[in-house]
Amino acid sequence: MPDQGDVPQPTINRLPVYLRILKAAAREGLETLSSSDMERRTGISSDQIRKDLSYFGEFGKPGTGYSVATLLGRLMNIMGLDREQPAMIVGAGNLGAALTGYPGFAEWKFRVAAVYDNNWSKIGRRLWDLEIWDIQGMAQRNRKMGIEIGIIATPAEAAQAVADTMIKAGVRSILNFAPIRLEVPARIAVRNVDMTLELHVLSYRRKEKDRTAQPPKRTKPQ
Amino acid sequence: MPDQGDVPQPTINRLPVYLRILKAAAREGLETLSSSDMERRTGISSDQIRKDLSYFGEFGKPGTGYSVATLLGRLMNIMGLDREQPAMIVGAGNLGAALTGYPGFAEWKFRVAAVYDNNWSKIGRRLWDLEIWDIQGMAQRNRKMGIEIGIIATPAEAAQAVADTMIKAGVRSILNFAPIRLEVPARIAVRNVDMTLELHVLSYRRKEKDRTAQPPKRTKPQ
Repeated sequence: MPDQGDVPQPTINRLPVYLRILKAAAREGLETLSSSDMERRTGISSDQIRKDLSYFGEFGKPGTGYSVATLLGRLMNIMGLDREQPAMIVGAGNLGAALTGYPGFAEWKFRVAAVYDNNWSKIGRRLWDLEIWDIQGMAQRNRKMGIEIGIIATPAEAAQAVADTMIKAGVRSILNFAPIRLEVPARIAVRNVDMTLELHVLSYRRKEKDRTAQPPKRTKPQ
Repeated sequence: MPDQGDVPQPTINRLPVYLRILKAAAREGLETLSSSDMERRTGISSDQIRKDLSYFGEFGKPGTGYSVATLLGRLMNIMGLDREQPAMIVGAGNLGAALTGYPGFAEWKFRVAAVYDNNWSKIGRRLWDLEIWDIQGMAQRNRKMGIEIGIIATPAEAAQAVADTMIKAGVRSILNFAPIRLEVPARIAVRNVDMTLELHVLSYRRKEKDRTAQPPKRTKPQ
């Protein structure tokens, strides 16, 4: 197996995309996928796909393509998705409630095991099957629970203090939904979810269609 | 200006990333950014950045880099983000409520102008400053409103029927939060938001740290 220390970040960012199409292919009953099948399903070039996957071993067979089951299993193992991972959510508002009940997490073995808030009107209430706990008690509770993934679903103003509290309580990876850049020590991994990102791509596509739909047909510049 | 018809999808997908760092740079009071500054802020190689931006014109000046204000204005124009765009949300549950109140939309001139649901206990109630409307009336209402961006925040089972209803009502671009692949005519643009995607990247990073932290130090394969 090749050394995985030098896998570039863009390759890592594409792994979830490969996982999704492999899972879809498995559901469709396909046994193999070629890199051109994968190109058609992802929009990523087959050259790039072969290069990305080569960081993790030799999966493809000339003429038949990649074994869906083998590649899916291997990627899930590489990504740590072959065992259940508990996560905590801070912020029991609308977004926190939506995330706590989000079926997509369970599909990938992420389990929301704790929900915290600082609002007295919420603490002690139930969110789905969980009691909302006081954020003040996080460090003590998490000494036993040992949750290392924290999801921030608070307003932007609260997010940095929540991140600091999480890190003190032992969280090592933070998924941040608040529209703010968090300051964290280098050993802590942070990913930001920006729900407007995909809207921008849609906006571009609309504009593009308007452009191409406009008569008269444009001529190429000389 | 070069013809924009052939801009590859991966380039389009990176435009929102460039927008974000340009906006941050503008907030910091920076007048110019070099492609290596942009590489440091995005993790995208400076070669790739220069190539991506060259599809839209000649922005960079040798030695000084890109003018932040010029490039930001140009990208916002290219992406259709320089004017307000109304959107409708279907699904007034936790996610729909979180999205309706999401401050990130307004920051980029997306305005949630209508919220629909099919649940009688929700129709007629208020969500933030909007009344929740009956999805049955969408086609008629939208004849006047002309909203072309639809956001699906329903459970997976309902999403396809909602998409069909939206398209009949004149929606041309769909942002889908339901974990299901929608079938739509080719003229309709769809982007799926998968809230577990970034969790996968975090999961990989954790696993990677565990690997590199483990003694004894691995040796390179022969």
